[in-house]
Amino acid sequence: MSLIVQKYGGTSVGTPERIVEVARRIRRWREQGHDIVVVVSAMSGETNRLLQIAREITPSPDPRELDVLLSTGEQVTIALLCMALHRLGCAARSYTGAQVHIRTDSTFNKARILEIDEQKVRGDLAQGRVVVVAGFQGVDGAGNITTLGRGGSDTTAVALAAALKAGECQIYTDVDGVYTTDPRVVPQARRLERITFEEMLEMSSLGSKVLQIRAVEFAGKYGVPLRVLSSFEEGEGTLITKEEQQDMEQAVISGIAFNRDEAKLTILGVPDEPGVAYRIVGPIGEANIELDMIIQNVGADGNTDFTFTVHRSDYQKALEILSRLADDLGAREVEGDNRIAKISLVGVGMRSHAGIASTMFRALADEGINIRMISTSEIKISVVVDDKYLELGVRALHSAFGLGGAVQDRSRGE
Amino acid sequence: MSLIVQKYGGTSVGTPERIVEVARRIRRWREQGHDIVVVVSAMSGETNRLLQIAREITPSPDPRELDVLLSTGEQVTIALLCMALHRLGCAARSYTGAQVHIRTDSTFNKARILEIDEQKVRGDLAQGRVVVVAGFQGVDGAGNITTLGRGGSDTTAVALAAALKAGECQIYTDVDGVYTTDPRVVPQARRLERITFEEMLEMSSLGSKVLQIRAVEFAGKYGVPLRVLSSFEEGEGTLITKEEQQDMEQAVISGIAFNRDEAKLTILGVPDEPGVAYRIVGPIGEANIELDMIIQNVGADGNTDFTFTVHRSDYQKALEILSRLADDLGAREVEGDNRIAKISLVGVGMRSHAGIASTMFRALADEGINIRMISTSEIKISVVVDDKYLELGVRALHSAFGLGGAVQDRSRGE
Repeated sequence: MSLIVQKYGGTSVGTPERIVEVARRIRRWREQGHDIVVVVSAMSGETNRLLQIAREITPSPDPRELDVLLSTGEQVTIALLCMALHRLGCAARSYTGAQVHIRTDSTFNKARILEIDEQKVRGDLAQGRVVVVAGFQGVDGAGNITTLGRGGSDTTAVALAAALKAGECQIYTDVDGVYTTDPRVVPQARRLERITFEEMLEMSSLGSKVLQIRAVEFAGKYGVPLRVLSSFEEGEGTLITKEEQQDMEQAVISGIAFNRDEAKLTILGVPDEPGVAYRIVGPIGEANIELDMIIQNVGADGNTDFTFTVHRSDYQKALEILSRLADDLGAREVEGDNRIAKISLVGVGMRSHAGIASTMFRALADEGINIRMISTSEIKISVVVDDKYLELGVRALHSAFGLGGAVQDRSRGE
Repeated sequence: MSLIVQKYGGTSVGTPERIVEVARRIRRWREQGHDIVVVVSAMSGETNRLLQIAREITPSPDPRELDVLLSTGEQVTIALLCMALHRLGCAARSYTGAQVHIRTDSTFNKARILEIDEQKVRGDLAQGRVVVVAGFQGVDGAGNITTLGRGGSDTTAVALAAALKAGECQIYTDVDGVYTTDPRVVPQARRLERITFEEMLEMSSLGSKVLQIRAVEFAGKYGVPLRVLSSFEEGEGTLITKEEQQDMEQAVISGIAFNRDEAKLTILGVPDEPGVAYRIVGPIGEANIELDMIIQNVGADGNTDFTFTVHRSDYQKALEILSRLADDLGAREVEGDNRIAKISLVGVGMRSHAGIASTMFRALADEGINIRMISTSEIKISVVVDDKYLELGVRALHSAFGLGGAVQDRSRGE
């Protein structure tokens, strides 16, 4: 028996029937003797419906009022879920972000949680109630309603779990866990029983949209064990925890992430002098274009080549900016390619194992796949390839690192 | 230049376009130099939509959670209206009931306002902002969201006007004022320029659904001048104020109200002894049936007849209860009629004028309309007739009391 925080996303509470299903699931946990705090999102489609109405009124809604508007989505769900719990004979009480004092800063639309006063929640738990909290929203010091930005409900759940020192924070979603890679691309992909926060961060940032990055960071920072599991079927899901030092024989690679929404741009022959990187990256950032990989290779003859990747939808804009810059910088030319994809190996085991990169490069070479860019971090190796090779490359790597087969359990050293 | 509280109902804010229209109207008032506080309802249809979803989950939603659910309707509107005001260059800020501290008791679904902390509103007004407040909702002492029941937005507006000592509380609706009677029944019906709180209460309670009864009571109690006017056309509407003593020559009758949703029940030959009225009315009240008129005539031979009217939809249930009671009470028989209608003359002038009743009864007799019941109060005479005579009776009375012709201004003695 322990305190568990559960979070159900928009799809899980998308219809009245599904809300009743979620209530049944919660009751089963209660019957096992656990204290349960539930965080819910808006019913799927609701946030977009509200945004659509706002856009009919003004193309640029006031940020404060947008949060007043959007926060109603979760408020509807908390009320409905409590009604469903009552119908099942399960005592429950709902709270908006403001009611449970989820204090944030005043950055409307993407506020950050500063503190949570968990006393109210503890009081209800002590009286045997399930506590249902609206995700995604909070209140600033002046009493204004704020929202945490899309997907912020995961963050609400983790923050509550941290404040309550919960035994586990369970994120219910429409997949049954974190996989070695996308099963739609590699049918042999396997659900992981465990993964570390760091690995999960890399997987998330590379397009595995199972969890919000901020929520994973938050959980890692406060050491909240996170579990991703399906709200539509039974199963253990994937537990995301700290790296356990006693794991002697853990697998080297935990998963393969990929992203096909990228484009790469190169500015060739820029003078290799201090400040040149900033003069390139500055205007790109000012145009609100996010950079992913940035690579600058060693120069020759006082010149160097500078390459970066952006989201594919920003490709044209980035190309125009770079073309203008090229003249100012005295660069030789600008090249671009928006038909690329990125494939990354992720694994904390990588730190202590040599040869990962060579196994990776050989596997790709064996399939005749040319590597266009390489970038590495402590627990990740990323390569950029032509996007037509994406699926082939992922399958080749999945096989080369033996990720298929029985359910992966990287950390069962104990 | 004064402080005006305006309330816009669900139809007035029923679409994004109409919300922009309301914003334009508010800006015109601002341009005239007035300070404006706006109270809005949920967009028309929204409350029913939410109730429908709740019913799909449970036939009997928890009252606390129902208020959490329903209060989102007004929250959506305040945000959208502020967005529209900003678009028109008009500074504005929205507040939920909780944010502006509309303190109520804890009677979920039909809470009563206890107090309002108007400091936040005054602060915004001082900074030149329009303040937009969610109607219909408040917060109890423990921080729970409450609602005031259907139509409660009128009450919110009046309560704010009272707290702020506003010069006027304007209720915008889909009619352009209070009429001598329903223009659909009597084409000659005229808009009243003024009417007293007491008269308005009688008109409201008799089916003229322009204003919520509670709001009128509230306004009368605190002396808040109320004005009913159309949100779709220009015009002065109808001002509801205290009776002005200097009015020497005011009209005797201000209007004719009627209600066709009634049924009457009579229990005949019950023993005329203490407690019998309670033994009849008690079980009816326990079955949540509301009584309208109650008439007991003088008895003979130690027996008496007891008649009351109920809403037509409660007729069958009331009839069953009464039939069971008849045996217990030793009554002779039970009679009922659900094809009746009530017509009432309303006017404060009635107090000082004899002959109203006789004019009324003669006008009905001239049309061959039989009166089935009569009941009077200080400023009202009500009769029950067969419902087929309703329109004929209302028209005959409207003409007999000279209510048609030029716009009625009952209180222009000054």
